[in-house]
Parts: sequence; structure tokens; C-alpha cells
Amino acid sequence: MHDLIIIGGGPSAMSAGIYAARKKIKTLLICKELGGQLNEAGQVENYLGFESILGAELAQKFVSHLKKFDLEIKEKQEIKKIERLADSGFKILNGHNDKEQSRAIIITSGKCSRKLGVPGEEKFIGRGISFCAVCDAPLFKDKEVAVVGGGNAAVQSALEMAKYASKVYLLSLYSKLMADKFEQEKIKAASNIEVVFDVQVKEIQGDRFVSGLIYQDTPNLSLGGGRKEKKKLSVQGVHIEIGSIPSSNFIKDVVELNEKGEIKIDYQNRTSQPGIFAAGDVTNVSHKQIVIAAGEGAKAALNACEYLKDAPQM
Amino acid sequence: MHDLIIIGGGPSAMSAGIYAARKKIKTLLICKELGGQLNEAGQVENYLGFESILGAELAQKFVSHLKKFDLEIKEKQEIKKIERLADSGFKILNGHNDKEQSRAIIITSGKCSRKLGVPGEEKFIGRGISFCAVCDAPLFKDKEVAVVGGGNAAVQSALEMAKYASKVYLLSLYSKLMADKFEQEKIKAASNIEVVFDVQVKEIQGDRFVSGLIYQDTPNLSLGGGRKEKKKLSVQGVHIEIGSIPSSNFIKDVVELNEKGEIKIDYQNRTSQPGIFAAGDVTNVSHKQIVIAAGEGAKAALNACEYLKDAPQM
Repeated sequence: MHDLIIIGGGPSAMSAGIYAARKKIKTLLICKELGGQLNEAGQVENYLGFESILGAELAQKFVSHLKKFDLEIKEKQEIKKIERLADSGFKILNGHNDKEQSRAIIITSGKCSRKLGVPGEEKFIGRGISFCAVCDAPLFKDKEVAVVGGGNAAVQSALEMAKYASKVYLLSLYSKLMADKFEQEKIKAASNIEVVFDVQVKEIQGDRFVSGLIYQDTPNLSLGGGRKEKKKLSVQGVHIEIGSIPSSNFIKDVVELNEKGEIKIDYQNRTSQPGIFAAGDVTNVSHKQIVIAAGEGAKAALNACEYLKDAPQM
Repeated sequence: MHDLIIIGGGPSAMSAGIYAARKKIKTLLICKELGGQLNEAGQVENYLGFESILGAELAQKFVSHLKKFDLEIKEKQEIKKIERLADSGFKILNGHNDKEQSRAIIITSGKCSRKLGVPGEEKFIGRGISFCAVCDAPLFKDKEVAVVGGGNAAVQSALEMAKYASKVYLLSLYSKLMADKFEQEKIKAASNIEVVFDVQVKEIQGDRFVSGLIYQDTPNLSLGGGRKEKKKLSVQGVHIEIGSIPSSNFIKDVVELNEKGEIKIDYQNRTSQPGIFAAGDVTNVSHKQIVIAAGEGAKAALNACEYLKDAPQM
């Protein structure tokens, strides 16, 4: 029986773990992999205190820091469900040995970017493929970049990239952009952004780093066969912005989610279920960034500790 | 004319500055001193990524990071007032040359701990004198510590210290503690905490680090003269917890404050005044910690950038 179980292994989880352990709360941190999404990030230049560091290296620093403290860590775990116990407290179900119980929970299960699912994509993550324009745009200074997507986030990412890149291709699956008009006007005004409509990315190519991509007309278009040929675009960066998926499915029957599937939290990181707190990218926090997730994790842990003072013993 | 003025120089301000500069927003950061309260902190062991670092050293890393980006920084400035301009935007008054104007503002002016104002206090800050129990308690492992104060925060600090210290003296100015009964019961249950009532700290002593303090009966007690003698208590740490003061006086007529004088913000760091955002210790954020302030600063900057997209040009 634990006081607190933290579900997740990213910056939010690790920051929460440090704060809980320092409060001498009996804590279990349970996750797929310590580091989380950060392991896949490119060069990180906006986490206060580190001028420029590879995502995986920063994750390693976080892990070392966490491991200095007295808490239990279980990796390679997938949580299927959380159940409220009859009296008070919670039970974590992983589908095998459902033995972990706690008086409070912090969910920091993050989100995953929706991926294209094309050849070359996995290989070049962190080697020219970006999933975070705010983080990575300065890395593409004077380079040519493709942004894949057509919604607000994709348009904003294209604009962000265009501040640095010499040329940005915005590759839209449809014959018009789904983004707000206001955003679309900015795309038109940007001299170095070219929108390519009705195309689907089929492959990302390169040697050590991205050197280009292969695309084709969107298949459901009733166009002449002549336009079905595959075309190559030479770019040094591919930013994929086709949505992200909060990892909240396992908790959807227990806490309230918003329309995006994010866990709704208040200013004390409380969810709709007393005793369950949440922090970071899985929540409706206004922006998803490493330093914000770290701060939110600390805040969730301190609020969970205050909750535990008054919560029933088990 | 700036797009954004950030008022403050602590972790929140610096994180906001990095995020704003990366968005290519024309930004001025204006403060008394870069680093803020962090310059006075002892060993910091809870900022994710740095296992153990002196406050002033961490502040220096933050400053170096900030200065890599393209934004204007003005130190040794004190802001007296903010005025809303007739059409839109704001003017910053420093009492000398009131020329700085901007379309949006982020206030990160922090708070200051209320100090005792006794000899030795300034000298031993960061050398045995602590203003943050969550941060510093592990540094006093197996040492003797005095906690000065009698409210909830002081009692919680004493309990926090007692997890590590061999002995904690809680020095109360009054004949009873002002803290909640629930907290007071925990003090009674702790075998290594001794409450000393009706005393006033007169001096903090030591060589390089704190070695003790001098106290006296609270003067307004109508007790025999025999108890007026000065007494010495040998301790290696003194934690002062007699309240803190949000640095919000200059803005009190422009944005809504709560009963503690903290700026009220929503989940997007907006204050009651459109165009003015706030972050960190000066706000009603639920806990005041370095990593939380850094996250909040980033969030405020990203929300201010979104505001600026739609805000009138000047």
C-alpha cells in the first residue's frame, strides 16, 4: 500500500516524484519508460537552465536526479484501468498482477503525437523529423522544411518554422486548409511559405539525417492517372503536425475529460475525482512544454501531499 | 515601443523571456536584479535536472541561458506604477524617465520573505538561514534547527525540518501558536520538536555559518524582570517563517489582488486587466517553487504571444 502512485515517466512525473519523495510520502512511480516523449525530442533549447541539450540527454539528467530520492520506480508497465476502492483509495490494474494500491494518484501519462505511419518516419525522429515547432524551429535556420498538416497547429508550426527556415512547404491532405482564416492570411503573407494541396506523404528519406520526402496526390481525388506519380521534395526537415492524442483512455471512466480527451484539472491540479491529481501534457494545461510539465508535476505533488494529510488511512 | 514588457528578474521572468524571444516578440525585461530571490537561496535540490546546486549558481545558469536570446534587458530598475494608455497598450512608470511602453505586460515581480531585522540575519542568508523549508530541510539532516514563527507555514516548516533535523525549536512570539489545531497536534506528536513560547529573536550568531541565536522574552509580557535576560540557543540552522510579502504594490490599482496581496490569475496566466499577464510567486499559484515559477513564466509568455496576435498595433 502506497500513499501516492504517479502514473507516467516524463518530466511531469519525475518532478512530481522528486517533490513527493522529499515530503517523505511513500511513493510509487509506474511508467512505460522513464523520460517519456522527451527521449524522442531533438535539441532542447527552452528548458530554463540548459542552453542546448539533446532531448534524450536532458531526460537522462532528469532520471539521475529522480533516482537520488527514496521512491519506488517500476518501468515497462502499462496501466489499463484505475478503480476506486470501496472505502477510500485506489487500485491500479495492469492486466496481469493487479496489486498496487494507493491513497492518492497523480496521472502524468502525457500525450503522443499522431504519426504518419510511413517508411523512414521512425528512423529520422530527432534527425530532422520534428513534432514540436516551438522547440525545434531555430534548428532549421536557413534550411528547407516541410510541415505536414492543415489545421491551426500545422499553420502555426509553418509560421514558426518560416521565421528561421529559408523555405517552408506546407503539405495539406485536403484541397483547403482547415485552419482559421486569420491564420491562413498570415500564411499567404509569408513570402517563404508554399502550400501544396491534396497531397499525402508516402516516405521520408535520408542518410543520417532527413534529405527529402516522397509524396503523391491524395488517393480519393478523382483526377487523371497522370497525377498519380510519386514526387520527391528535397527538405532537411519534416515537421509532422497532424494532431496529438492524450494518453487518457485508461482513465476516461474515472475522471472528466475535455473534448480533446485531455484530463480537466483546476489550479491545484485536482481532477473531478477526489484523490486523483493530474499534470502535464495529458491535462488541459494551456501549453505543452517540458518546463511547464515539470512545474505542473511539482504543483500536483505538493497538492497531493496536502490532500493526503486529511485523507483517510487505509 | 515594445510588444511585451516583462517586469521581474527571477526564474519566472527569465523563462518568460526565453519563450517570448523565441517567438520573435519584441521584448523588454526590466528588473532590479537578474536572478531575483534565487540569488539568496541555499542549496537547491528540487529543480528538475540539477541534483544539487547553490541558488546563486543556478541563477547564473538561468541568466546565461536568457542572454543567448534576442531581447532587451534593463537591470537596476524599480517600477512604481503601470498606466493603461488611452487607445491600447501600457506605459511603465519608474519615477525618472517614464518612456517604456508596450502592447502587453507580464508581471513576475515575485515576493519577499518578511525578515526579522536583527543583527546577523543578512550575513547568514544562505549560510544556515533558510526561508524555504521544502527546499532546505534535507540540508539540516542530523542538525539542530530553530524555526521562527507560529502560523501554519511556520508549523509546517518545523514539521518539514523535523523529518531531517535531530532537534527543532519552534520559537513563537506569542503564548500560543496561531496555526490550525490539526497542525498543532502534529507538533505535539513529534518527539524532536520543542515549542518555546513568548520569545523574540534578537540576534543570529556564527562564524562562517550559523552557530546559534540570542533570544529574549517578548517585551510586552508583564513578567518579572528575571526573565528578561538574553538566552542563547545553539543551532546550526535558523528558518524564518514570519510571512511573505508579494511585490504587487505597484500594480494594486490596475489588476485584482487576493486577500494576501497576490495577483489573481486564470489558467492562461491572465490577470483581471486584458493585456496584463502574471506568473510565479507574485500570483495566487498554489505553491511557490523555482520549477513552478519557471513553468508559469513559459505559460504566461505563450499566452501573451497569443494575445498579441489579435491585440491592436500601436
